[in-house]
Amino acid sequence: MKQIQKLKELDMQISSKWQEIFSHPQAINFANSLMGKDKRVYALYLTQVYHYASHTARNQALVAVNLTNQNTAYMKFCLEHTLEETGHELMALHDLRSIGVPIADPEKEMPQALVATELLIAYLYWISSHGNPVQRLGYSYWAETSYHFISSFVEMLTSNLNLKRQQMTFYYSHSNIDEKHARDVEEIVCKVCKTDEDWRQVSKVAITTLDLTNQILLSVLSEYQKLVEGTHSDFEILNKIK
Amino acid sequence: MKQIQKLKELDMQISSKWQEIFSHPQAINFANSLMGKDKRVYALYLTQVYHYASHTARNQALVAVNLTNQNTAYMKFCLEHTLEETGHELMALHDLRSIGVPIADPEKEMPQALVATELLIAYLYWISSHGNPVQRLGYSYWAETSYHFISSFVEMLTSNLNLKRQQMTFYYSHSNIDEKHARDVEEIVCKVCKTDEDWRQVSKVAITTLDLTNQILLSVLSEYQKLVEGTHSDFEILNKIK
Amino acid sequence: MKQIQKLKELDMQISSKWQEIFSHPQAINFANSLMGKDKRVYALYLTQVYHYASHTARNQALVAVNLTNQNTAYMKFCLEHTLEETGHELMALHDLRSIGVPIADPEKEMPQALVATELLIAYLYWISSHGNPVQRLGYSYWAETSYHFISSFVEMLTSNLNLKRQQMTFYYSHSNIDEKHARDVEEIVCKVCKTDEDWRQVSKVAITTLDLTNQILLSVLSEYQKLVEGTHSDFEILNKIK
Amino acid sequence: MKQIQKLKELDMQISSKWQEIFSHPQAINFANSLMGKDKRVYALYLTQVYHYASHTARNQALVAVNLTNQNTAYMKFCLEHTLEETGHELMALHDLRSIGVPIADPEKEMPQALVATELLIAYLYWISSHGNPVQRLGYSYWAETSYHFISSFVEMLTSNLNLKRQQMTFYYSHSNIDEKHARDVEEIVCKVCKTDEDWRQVSKVAITTLDLTNQILLSVLSEYQKLVEGTHSDFEILNKIK
Repeated sequence: MKQIQKLKELDMQISSKWQEIFSHPQAINFANSLMGKDKRVYALYLTQVYHYASHTARNQALVAVNLTNQNTAYMKFCLEHTLEETGHELMALHDLRSIGVPIADPEKEMPQALVATELLIAYLYWISSHGNPVQRLGYSYWAETSYHFISSFVEMLTSNLNLKRQQMTFYYSHSNIDEKHARDVEEIVCKVCKTDEDWRQVSKVAITTLDLTNQILLSVLSEYQKLVEGTHSDFEILNKIK
Repeated sequence: MKQIQKLKELDMQISSKWQEIFSHPQAINFANSLMGKDKRVYALYLTQVYHYASHTARNQALVAVNLTNQNTAYMKFCLEHTLEETGHELMALHDLRSIGVPIADPEKEMPQALVATELLIAYLYWISSHGNPVQRLGYSYWAETSYHFISSFVEMLTSNLNLKRQQMTFYYSHSNIDEKHARDVEEIVCKVCKTDEDWRQVSKVAITTLDLTNQILLSVLSEYQKLVEGTHSDFEILNKIK
Repeated sequence: MKQIQKLKELDMQISSKWQEIFSHPQAINFANSLMGKDKRVYALYLTQVYHYASHTARNQALVAVNLTNQNTAYMKFCLEHTLEETGHELMALHDLRSIGVPIADPEKEMPQALVATELLIAYLYWISSHGNPVQRLGYSYWAETSYHFISSFVEMLTSNLNLKRQQMTFYYSHSNIDEKHARDVEEIVCKVCKTDEDWRQVSKVAITTLDLTNQILLSVLSEYQKLVEGTHSDFEILNKIK
Repeated sequence: MKQIQKLKELDMQISSKWQEIFSHPQAINFANSLMGKDKRVYALYLTQVYHYASHTARNQALVAVNLTNQNTAYMKFCLEHTLEETGHELMALHDLRSIGVPIADPEKEMPQALVATELLIAYLYWISSHGNPVQRLGYSYWAETSYHFISSFVEMLTSNLNLKRQQMTFYYSHSNIDEKHARDVEEIVCKVCKTDEDWRQVSKVAITTLDLTNQILLSVLSEYQKLVEGTHSDFEILNKIK
């Protein structure tokens, strides 16, 4: 009973954070930029997905490696989810190529992670290897249930940019496994959180990583602005999209 | 073709190491001590299994976390095997209890890891997080195929000590998954080893960890000797076995 | 010649970041809150200094531990600076006590790190153990030269809050070693940065960590607001200041 | 009083371990091989010093990075000793070159670490980052006082091999700082060890690492045998010594 109550509180915190994010004027600017039917902003985002996806799988596994985590069920949850997400950065690479970004060797040609992306990566490694091992569930929790919040936005994007399904494999592969994962993560959160402090830590990480992810989107938009204005940018390879 | 040749060489190196181990006079002493039908030597060994089993799963996962490992198939192999072995120290704990060792809280009552056990643990963490990520396969390789070498020894042990199947869950659970694992590990070794140096590293780790495991057995025997002689020992809780 | 030019560019980037920070309306609010002569805002800041100071020394040493750092002079710089800063969280603790915060056992009674503080800590560990080892100099560089920018602000603070020197040991101990350190860090940056990419990394970390530090200040102010308004806060122990 | 008693016990354990090491027939073989005035055995040893020296400084610093170490005096001890030993692998490299081993680029031409050397390195990283942080003092303790035990052996070596002082910079630099270090380490052991378990851990690590170091010597001798017999060896570059 108490767990269901706590879960509802967590859902409400996440939901109101999403509303805050979508209410921001940048989101509207973003939508407007899409009107221009410019695939570069989507490509820019995919370069960052490429970076964080390769790390989130790894730091998810770190939670199982961490000796302060002695909960076998939770260790297995971490390993199973890492297994499902290992190598997913290759989907982002595939999508980049399929919209026409000429990246042959990603190690040399993939634009670097933006500072905002590095911050999300750094924070996830930190909370996966230090402090209460429970807390990383805050990230998994909102990430697995995010499709609910972003699907209409993504549909608008797809239609504006005239994207085909095979140009969005990262998105679709994750939205498909969404429902099973969402139940898994609910179950493990309820099993692993035993104290109010545990729930507080999960909530803290959920809100913080949702904020950091929003910062990535905002950074993507401001890098896009550089491409539009033609000022120097590390992402000029994206101008090759036809 | 070359891979099969290399695999055969590795098999021969491991096989001759096993022969060296079994030819040692200590092995005979071990068998003799068993004649005495003394379960304490088996219990002593299980306390060490408890320690290394909880770490080998974790450092196996570290190979997937390691950023120098960029091979998706190999990362998945590591995660799958960690998944199967997570929590197996609880089997060793179960076996200890079922032969009559009164350990209620393992964190407080489980005798410590012997130096030899610490060395195996330390070495596995080191090779899992530094150097050629391929090398850790050397440990998986011999470990998954070890039942072939030790089964007749274990049968003798079982019969001498009059052990029941439910007192040997750690052993039987691992021997059961043996055949599938043995094929998996052969396959991944052949996929991942691309150069002679890769094979050399796998072989080095196989022989070194087999040696270290043998050192654990020898240390168990010499600790057992202390119990027999009644000199001070960290394992006196094992004297409570009826 | 080129190094001096690069150093000047770095100085200008940091200097304009400071101006941006000071031009923010929050800084004025901060000053206004000081008018109220309320030591709680200073205390709040010290609790966060306590947290990050204990970590910055440690992650500074990690740069020397990091095997990708093969520059002996740079390794020694890191170790010397860690040595000088080890245990400095105790100065923050001393200052908290001397303004009347009744913290007997910091492990139990010290309020937790704010999310903004955790982000700075997480980012410093990340850049100290991954990527170009040179980059962490970006943090040392602005930190050692910051007294130049903040001294007039601190003087105003001191006078508003009527702080005595022994209530500001953390600040004074760091401003005293400032000049020597500032020269040290200039020297090592010029020695260690060999490529434009090296300088770019140093600059990226300088600006990012200066931003993160500013976020700590802003978070301190918004936590202070909670204390003023009497809403629930993790920092209520600070209300005990007389 | 108790600390002095404990220190004496530790000294006796170490001293009897040294006697055990020197009583081994291999030590005599070693001396005999020296009669042949063959610098290759000394060179072989130096290649291993090159490897472990670069790691022991780093893992010493890890003890200060380790968050379970909250003792400021002990953290400073670790950092000071790391500082003094940073880059000492370059002395081993210098000595190798000065006896005629043609290593231009050590990263490519330095023979690899032997398994025994890897084991010492792996164990030191493990005990520096896990378990009781006090334990690593066991290694520092015997290492700083070892010159007392090995000096007559080294004198015999020097005279047999006709070594000049500038071919032994690693040895002499360490024996010079010996006395001060020996006092430092005694002092910090007494300050940091508070319980019998602490002393037991220090003693365990002292004996284990002395054993591992002896294993390095024995491995060096058996690799030397390969050079003498002309069978394949990774150390053939040492045959170029005139």
